[in-house]
Amino acid sequence: MTSDHPHVPHLTTALTGPLQQIESHLLEQQSRIEAWLRAQWRETPAPLYASVDLRNAGFKLAPVDTNLFPAGFNNLNPAFLPLCIQAFQTKMEHICEAASNILLIPEDHTRNLYYLESLATLRDIVAKAGYGVRVGSLREDLTAPETFELPSGARLTLEPVQRRGRRVGLADFDPCMVLLNNDLIGGHPEKLRDLEQMVIPPPDLGWTVRLKSGHFTHYHEVATEFAKMLDIDPWLINPMFRNCGELNFQKREGEECLLKNAGRLLEDIQKKYDEYNIDRDPFVVIKADAGTYGMAIMSVTSVDELRSLNRKQRNKMGSMKGGRGVSKFLLQEGVYTFETWGKEEAVAEPVVYMIDHFVVGGFYRVHKGRGVHENLNAPGMQFEPLAFVESCINPDTSQDPDAEPNRFYAYGVIARLALLAAARELAEHREELAEGAAEAQA
Amino acid sequence: MTSDHPHVPHLTTALTGPLQQIESHLLEQQSRIEAWLRAQWRETPAPLYASVDLRNAGFKLAPVDTNLFPAGFNNLNPAFLPLCIQAFQTKMEHICEAASNILLIPEDHTRNLYYLESLATLRDIVAKAGYGVRVGSLREDLTAPETFELPSGARLTLEPVQRRGRRVGLADFDPCMVLLNNDLIGGHPEKLRDLEQMVIPPPDLGWTVRLKSGHFTHYHEVATEFAKMLDIDPWLINPMFRNCGELNFQKREGEECLLKNAGRLLEDIQKKYDEYNIDRDPFVVIKADAGTYGMAIMSVTSVDELRSLNRKQRNKMGSMKGGRGVSKFLLQEGVYTFETWGKEEAVAEPVVYMIDHFVVGGFYRVHKGRGVHENLNAPGMQFEPLAFVESCINPDTSQDPDAEPNRFYAYGVIARLALLAAARELAEHREELAEGAAEAQA
Repeated sequence: MTSDHPHVPHLTTALTGPLQQIESHLLEQQSRIEAWLRAQWRETPAPLYASVDLRNAGFKLAPVDTNLFPAGFNNLNPAFLPLCIQAFQTKMEHICEAASNILLIPEDHTRNLYYLESLATLRDIVAKAGYGVRVGSLREDLTAPETFELPSGARLTLEPVQRRGRRVGLADFDPCMVLLNNDLIGGHPEKLRDLEQMVIPPPDLGWTVRLKSGHFTHYHEVATEFAKMLDIDPWLINPMFRNCGELNFQKREGEECLLKNAGRLLEDIQKKYDEYNIDRDPFVVIKADAGTYGMAIMSVTSVDELRSLNRKQRNKMGSMKGGRGVSKFLLQEGVYTFETWGKEEAVAEPVVYMIDHFVVGGFYRVHKGRGVHENLNAPGMQFEPLAFVESCINPDTSQDPDAEPNRFYAYGVIARLALLAAARELAEHREELAEGAAEAQA
Repeated sequence: MTSDHPHVPHLTTALTGPLQQIESHLLEQQSRIEAWLRAQWRETPAPLYASVDLRNAGFKLAPVDTNLFPAGFNNLNPAFLPLCIQAFQTKMEHICEAASNILLIPEDHTRNLYYLESLATLRDIVAKAGYGVRVGSLREDLTAPETFELPSGARLTLEPVQRRGRRVGLADFDPCMVLLNNDLIGGHPEKLRDLEQMVIPPPDLGWTVRLKSGHFTHYHEVATEFAKMLDIDPWLINPMFRNCGELNFQKREGEECLLKNAGRLLEDIQKKYDEYNIDRDPFVVIKADAGTYGMAIMSVTSVDELRSLNRKQRNKMGSMKGGRGVSKFLLQEGVYTFETWGKEEAVAEPVVYMIDHFVVGGFYRVHKGRGVHENLNAPGMQFEPLAFVESCINPDTSQDPDAEPNRFYAYGVIARLALLAAARELAEHREELAEGAAEAQA
């Protein structure tokens, strides 16, 4: 079962029991799974793009975060860029078939070279799909085009976004569509409100409105339906979660509710571990319900640990990107990651990328200094990206269920379940918009 | 301009003049080209799949044959199978979204191991796209399932096709759709007539009905429209052609018409060669207007050569796969191929594969014993397939117009123009069917 390929992490758990069950089920039932997913996408179209962080504990394979404004495109295997290009073409034919010029609006944090590399890759995907594409920044301090020479050799020019009536564009560029790669954690910008152009994904999927607990509520339903179809325990692919109302770590407001829920969640995990004879300590991950970037996140293995946080830890949980306060938290079942890479057995966490409902690639976040129950997307974290060597859509039934193409296929299936949950969020959002419009008219 | 990559043929012509013009135009105008093609596909959907034989003379890049029931999938770079899988998924969502089981009906010549390898690859593409797929043979002598162990290690089982009422299937397999990989040169089989299941591509695109001259009439129009958009001479991408009425090489019936048309075509080519200062001998390829497999095909550089054919040559031109006679011929402008491979400078001819309107890969036919003006798809021809090392949809504007990704992009564009011609054939066929149905009702 071990991999000879030096570029693929090794799954350190013995492949007996549940995971064997998950992976071989997914492989054997491939055409049923794909038919089921096809029916789902007909009912609920997928978002334009997404990345999903997975954790593979051997006995459990589950998503822990779904990003609807993904970065990290530069970490994908360049060999699979054609898949990205083709998927983007397909998506555009469905949502905006007459589009020819696209304005890409990125995050504001333009000092992050990794992000700029991702942006350059995304821009290339759009251009190679056959669209005129330029990058417009919402940064207030940007008054003239600014060009960056990136470490990869790519060049990227950011230009100030201009609003003209109900349209946005650049000084000499009037796009048919806005492609958003900004999670809008700072709010829905005035410049993007009430546009006659299509903005994809819709700004209301940004962290101004979206909550992780909403996503995982949908994911819980998706995982339950899927597990029922395959006749497996949904827990094998579904992280349990709880959430409280408002919380203030610094002022210890809402702490009782937090401790109570953390305790119950730990008990629930222990029960499942007992059921499957898993000799590991349950842990719970507490993270901001809106936003990510690995801020305001911690993992605990006991209620006592949570009760005795020091001031520094409490402060860390209270602040978010851009200095904003955090008041809503998600308590999520911690999923161990038991994939390790290299002689040093560095911990690896897969991230899967999708465009439309197609899995287009992925990479591992590899981190040498972290433990198997720690979050690998943490502040200051310098992970090594390790591109998937194979696509996620080319399983090989003649090999073991855990052989590389099959493990990647399993990742692609679970990631698409998270994508389906996001699609349902999107549909819910559209319904709300339609209801809002109907009420406004009445 | 030369390629350092040992796996890519070298274009031996100096890149000055027309080709530079073609390739740099295609590269510079990429987003216009793609927008134009998108509009074309909206108007005229692409066939399910196709392969296009191209010839690259340096001064001219043109399709010489378009196969709507392609074989040779086994010759594609396995790295790009995910592109095939994804494109097939996309196509199926458009044409038959509820399908779950597909019956693949291949050619009857099952002693050809190369063909069986292609068939196994095609079956895998369909299976990995998430469909239940089995292979049903129309061979009269097949009464029970027959399994082949192929040189690649793949296994392929052919099962006898059964007709039940207005449906076809296998003994225990009732498919939603029939995927045809048989060019029906032997006629439209009774078993496939008046089915309630969808048969894709439609049997009337087989060589029973289709003519190359019909295809190249459409291609002429497509190339003219495209060239006008890009402001280039359409001849640079369009092989001239002529056809006669009925011909019998053995009985020398219709010979006068043949000689007259060949002479005129040679003159027309010479005029274009003069215009572009091309110091080469014009040549004409004469091939059966229906069917291919490199039978009934020859190239001549003068009318005299054609007049003085010996008996053996005349016999060869009169017979086709399956021993059928040939009476209709296409006279096509010969396009030199100036791509050579390796130290021995073997002649190479690109073949581009498409599924839906997506270019999914290609390979070179490399033949050491053939000349630059000879047809490389000839009987008994043992070409070496050489898979394209890169996809055809990932051009790199930072490199030379003739750098590998850019040359492959140019191939993908010209191949899609031939695909568009085939799409228009298909649309014409549908209109005829609709008219026929209306007349039958009236």
